Amino acid sequence: MAKFITIGERIHCISPVIREAMNTQNPEPILKRAKEQIDAGATYLDVNIGPAESNGVELMQWAVKLLQENFDNVPLALDTANRKAIEAGIQVYNRAKGKPIVNSADAGDRIENIDLAAANDAIVIALCSKAGVPADNDERMAYCQELLERGMEHGMEPTDMLFDPLFLVIKGMQDKQMDVLEAIKMLTDMGLRTTGGLSNVSNGMPKHIRPIMDSAMVAMAMMNGLSSAIVNPCDLRLMETIKSFDIIKDNDLYADSYLEI
Amino acid sequence: MAKFITIGERIHCISPVIREAMNTQNPEPILKRAKEQIDAGATYLDVNIGPAESNGVELMQWAVKLLQENFDNVPLALDTANRKAIEAGIQVYNRAKGKPIVNSADAGDRIENIDLAAANDAIVIALCSKAGVPADNDERMAYCQELLERGMEHGMEPTDMLFDPLFLVIKGMQDKQMDVLEAIKMLTDMGLRTTGGLSNVSNGMPKHIRPIMDSAMVAMAMMNGLSSAIVNPCDLRLMETIKSFDIIKDNDLYADSYLEI
Repeated sequence: MAKFITIGERIHCISPVIREAMNTQNPEPILKRAKEQIDAGATYLDVNIGPAESNGVELMQWAVKLLQENFDNVPLALDTANRKAIEAGIQVYNRAKGKPIVNSADAGDRIENIDLAAANDAIVIALCSKAGVPADNDERMAYCQELLERGMEHGMEPTDMLFDPLFLVIKGMQDKQMDVLEAIKMLTDMGLRTTGGLSNVSNGMPKHIRPIMDSAMVAMAMMNGLSSAIVNPCDLRLMETIKSFDIIKDNDLYADSYLEI
Repeated sequence: MAKFITIGERIHCISPVIREAMNTQNPEPILKRAKEQIDAGATYLDVNIGPAESNGVELMQWAVKLLQENFDNVPLALDTANRKAIEAGIQVYNRAKGKPIVNSADAGDRIENIDLAAANDAIVIALCSKAGVPADNDERMAYCQELLERGMEHGMEPTDMLFDPLFLVIKGMQDKQMDVLEAIKMLTDMGLRTTGGLSNVSNGMPKHIRPIMDSAMVAMAMMNGLSSAIVNPCDLRLMETIKSFDIIKDNDLYADSYLEI
């Protein structure tokens, strides 16, 4: 069984520091966050440049080169609504440590990102949604089917698609949490790989609770087969849980130092 | 779905303080540990008096009365190899807060503890083992079947049996962990309730790692249906995980204060 893949979420233009660094092409804040996440055990780094309508191509290429040159070709998820920026990022991307991830496609307006990933031999995060939150797992699985067929038509390997069932916020959608976990199980039983924006679960909760809730959720989701997640790898408790899971699942050999690796 | 049941393990004659208190019938150390566990959220308290061959009857009755009188009839698991002591404990047990638990029966020498539980309208922890650790899940399920049939023959409700798949120590049996989790799933899918000595998993690990590993394991086991566990409720991280699970599973309504309840 493959080890769990953590995609670090902290290079995101929603952060004022990162937005400013992207606007001025200032490497330091971005390199700092990259190093923190890699040191904490992130496998991939997500690079979210926002819509970036005017300067997306240039910005994404700058960010990809910056990160890969400084961190031994760290694999990246290219995250923007600007499709040309994703393509441009892939052009300068070094695959030595793994294929690029296109973040993301859905069964609605963004379905062409499947084609983009297929044309560029990339991995794609495929959201099981069309417009907004899927009503139930019938809808989730129908969208999954659409996305999977689209990928197949364009010659993708199913293992290059990371299906995202959409983690939902507990404050407001508490009664839907087991649906999401069940969807992960269904996708896994189909032989598919999964991912998701885990921290959405604890959105709006007091700061001290979020790592506790996220950590419980990730263990439950991993038990049902979750193969990766977009997370804050600097959340120590979460990473401890993920590393412990890889021990329990026998993906990593236990050593008393396993949390330090 | 019923809330998770935690059985506090800390009134155990293996502890020198508790052994001494049991030998001298000194209430204070036992009441102190009981209060700590109840305050931390334990549902049941386990009372392990050891083999107690000579004085088991008197000791168990003393302990049951002591705990129930001081803690509003807290429900108890009566834990000893001395069958007469369990029966004697049940005689003085007050069921206001829940049936007594007989800890434990197995498919070998201790199978008659099923009969004892049935005759006394008690719950029984039924270890899916005969002599030592079951080799695989075929063996676990065969023992489960034996235990279940024994219970049925004696008129027990299946829900009064807590099947224990035997949690195994990771240091030494790392490659067997998923078997145990799979067994929990199989038992749950049969409509059965489950329990287990969770902390066995992290036995021999450095002290700071144990709550981390136990916590990851309990979340995974709960995802597969584990309905109760014998744990140290004073392990804060573990209890936080269990409480978070009950939120995710919608067993408890979320409030920002849910960890404090």
